[in-house]
Amino acid sequence: MTDIASSALGPGTLYGIGTGPGDPELMTLKAVRLLRACPVVAYFAKRGGPGQARRIAASHLDGTHEEVPMVYPVTTELPPDSPAYAAAIEGFFDEQAERLAALLAAGKSVAVLNEGDPFFYGSYMHLHLRLAHRFRVEVVPGVPSILGCAAQLPIPLTIRDDVLSVIPGTLGEVELAAALSRADAAAVMKLGGNLPKVRRVIESLGLTHRAWYVERGTTETQRVHPLAEAPDVAPYFAMILIPGQGKRGDVLTAPQAAKSEVAE
Amino acid sequence: MTDIASSALGPGTLYGIGTGPGDPELMTLKAVRLLRACPVVAYFAKRGGPGQARRIAASHLDGTHEEVPMVYPVTTELPPDSPAYAAAIEGFFDEQAERLAALLAAGKSVAVLNEGDPFFYGSYMHLHLRLAHRFRVEVVPGVPSILGCAAQLPIPLTIRDDVLSVIPGTLGEVELAAALSRADAAAVMKLGGNLPKVRRVIESLGLTHRAWYVERGTTETQRVHPLAEAPDVAPYFAMILIPGQGKRGDVLTAPQAAKSEVAE
Repeated sequence: MTDIASSALGPGTLYGIGTGPGDPELMTLKAVRLLRACPVVAYFAKRGGPGQARRIAASHLDGTHEEVPMVYPVTTELPPDSPAYAAAIEGFFDEQAERLAALLAAGKSVAVLNEGDPFFYGSYMHLHLRLAHRFRVEVVPGVPSILGCAAQLPIPLTIRDDVLSVIPGTLGEVELAAALSRADAAAVMKLGGNLPKVRRVIESLGLTHRAWYVERGTTETQRVHPLAEAPDVAPYFAMILIPGQGKRGDVLTAPQAAKSEVAE
Repeated sequence: MTDIASSALGPGTLYGIGTGPGDPELMTLKAVRLLRACPVVAYFAKRGGPGQARRIAASHLDGTHEEVPMVYPVTTELPPDSPAYAAAIEGFFDEQAERLAALLAAGKSVAVLNEGDPFFYGSYMHLHLRLAHRFRVEVVPGVPSILGCAAQLPIPLTIRDDVLSVIPGTLGEVELAAALSRADAAAVMKLGGNLPKVRRVIESLGLTHRAWYVERGTTETQRVHPLAEAPDVAPYFAMILIPGQGKRGDVLTAPQAAKSEVAE
């Protein structure tokens, strides 16, 4: 950051790199350049798999990088809102930050891969908050999953004076309903097991006819359906999008918009 | 779109291409590939300048493309919410869509440049809505300006269960206050002449200490200030960002977050 005296900071630079929503071709030129230039590449992963961000960037990892997989601890026995879970996960982030700090202090720059965008619900932030006061940091923004998914729809996500709300599907039913009822356009992320609840709320607000379900958008296995035709079980990398109608109203008189409404 | 029978559509393909927020290196690999492959490149522009999207993509336009600048009509004598303005601007979009339709019908694929992302408040949508039922279309998502700007801040824009609201600064004071007061995190776009009004609303809600002003984010002339130190006059390509605090609350106890709060 420009307001931190770089002379006081360690020699390596920490890059938080957005890899985009899934299609490897939706990585930015800058992400690819920095990824190739950094000797160390780190990424979060679950046990048994390299993680989505590593998969997206795979073709740029040619065996010359030191790879640092940061494998989440198994915490399925703990309720996600319990103090025990918070302590376990914060301790894990502390440890991973110290792993990267040792590499940075040794003069190695580290690229942390983050699917979508690092500062938009990204897991990179856990490292950033722990290291940005000790090392040079740079965040490389990426195409977020909501826009990767929106690009698959027949009409724009937001137009003119629409207010867009981005809503985690993890919220409770009352909070979800409140957030959705005030939005002109909406994206409900983090779907997974929250799908039945989110669907019920959208139905109760009379918004189902405007809502789309998009799963793994921009990847080869993507699925796009009007919400009414969505599957019953959703992966975590699925979302519901409700495109805006344009507050000034005139846009939806265009022939294509009318056609899309019928197609729904 | 996959659900449209391509045999019924004209021979050229219309690409809505997101060029990202300003830094040419934040274009995606896909945007660059398609831009180079399309014989025709179209972009909106004001009289006297090539427009921001054309500037971002300039290094990929090597003189081999047929360029179609779509120059906005001068409408400064008309109030933006008047029927006369709406008629003038809709007529302009109709004309430009027909210009591109003629090229597409002749078998030429057309790349329409759109700064940021085409389906996120993008001007491309005016062409899409007029042409998507007549020609093959593909939207290539881009890094939106809000995330280009957010990457310049010391803390993430959204974390955990934050609800993000993206709010056009063109809204009236009451609507602005309502949208801002319900958001965990917020981005107010389309600032320009709306800055004094937006600032007043943010101040009245007691949110100034959390708000940042970012102008021309990711470009060489970018400016980043806590809102209290922002200039009095903002260009249209400026925004105010209010990062979320993380609904589960634990994140802001991290040392760097505390440090950032002091720096504000």
